[in-house]
Amino acid sequence: MPEGQPLVVPNDGLTTRQRRNRPLVMVHTGDGKGKSTAAFGLALRGWNQGWDIGIFQFVKSAKWRLGEQTAFEMLPPGKGSVEWHKMGSGWSWSRKAGSEEDHAADAAEGWAEIKRRIAAEQHDLYLLDEFTYPINWGWVDIDDVVETLANRPGNQHVVITGRRADPKLVELADLVTEMTKVKHPMDAGQKGQKGIEW
Amino acid sequence: MPEGQPLVVPNDGLTTRQRRNRPLVMVHTGDGKGKSTAAFGLALRGWNQGWDIGIFQFVKSAKWRLGEQTAFEMLPPGKGSVEWHKMGSGWSWSRKAGSEEDHAADAAEGWAEIKRRIAAEQHDLYLLDEFTYPINWGWVDIDDVVETLANRPGNQHVVITGRRADPKLVELADLVTEMTKVKHPMDAGQKGQKGIEW
Repeated sequence: MPEGQPLVVPNDGLTTRQRRNRPLVMVHTGDGKGKSTAAFGLALRGWNQGWDIGIFQFVKSAKWRLGEQTAFEMLPPGKGSVEWHKMGSGWSWSRKAGSEEDHAADAAEGWAEIKRRIAAEQHDLYLLDEFTYPINWGWVDIDDVVETLANRPGNQHVVITGRRADPKLVELADLVTEMTKVKHPMDAGQKGQKGIEW
Repeated sequence: MPEGQPLVVPNDGLTTRQRRNRPLVMVHTGDGKGKSTAAFGLALRGWNQGWDIGIFQFVKSAKWRLGEQTAFEMLPPGKGSVEWHKMGSGWSWSRKAGSEEDHAADAAEGWAEIKRRIAAEQHDLYLLDEFTYPINWGWVDIDDVVETLANRPGNQHVVITGRRADPKLVELADLVTEMTKVKHPMDAGQKGQKGIEW
């Protein structure tokens, strides 16, 4: 993707270098496969650049252990670092037990923690996996998300995945890719399989 | 993605398990970002399952060293294995020197090697990155590709990335995702940056 020249050189008072290194909000949305996979691939790329990465899995986290998590844990020290937090099995910073049933509270608590970390400039990249769902279900306030991301300090990248990204999130984002399903094995009666789906 | 039930249970004589483990041809196409990133993420997932993975980078390979390559090289033994081959800097199995200028021959040679490996069932997953371009430029024959993939032996998965996937490839594939660009920082005058693009 890095081929070519920008189509427009904006009159924003920034040098090319400043503009190049501007932190991004990225959104992977749409009904197709690859939204999360591409985000985890991006995290791997960031790891290689020495980034401190925070992964926050909303919704499906309790059910699956993704191959990516094991792989990240097996990467040797010397490059970046990856912290992996899962909703559903209890966020790792949360002390209260038995919250598994209250997904709305879990999601809100996850977002509150992410806000604290953004304010503290804790990570270089935040991967908010399937974060569009708690937003769309009203568990996390979209205006709060937009305001927090728009005003985040320092040089923090954010990538958000999930279907039906809120228009306000799309408006805010620097990069939005829609993964569209052209064809999926499930349409032909095939279930998910290891290595492909998890 | 693995939630839910198939929409259709086909009358193909296979058990659910057989159908589940059927090897896939996957295509990531479209003008958006994430085609290759999702494919490399898939390779990481396969690595965690102990797969033998062959990555073949067409076209852009000579110019970039992707963070993923470094990360894969740093992964410890005990899970899968990843072989990374690049067109442009000379395919690693090729003995002839000075072929850098002849991209068409390089691409054809890469495809011939991939065919040999598929016949020998060498890998569990073949990642043919940006393979749509040599096909579209006429360097590799689409009918040969379709026939080879359709008749491949054993349990070999294939993922192909690149814009404008040939309709015959889409027809053959089990899973096709189109990554559509909704918004890209380059539209706003921003160039690529490390960690995000490579």
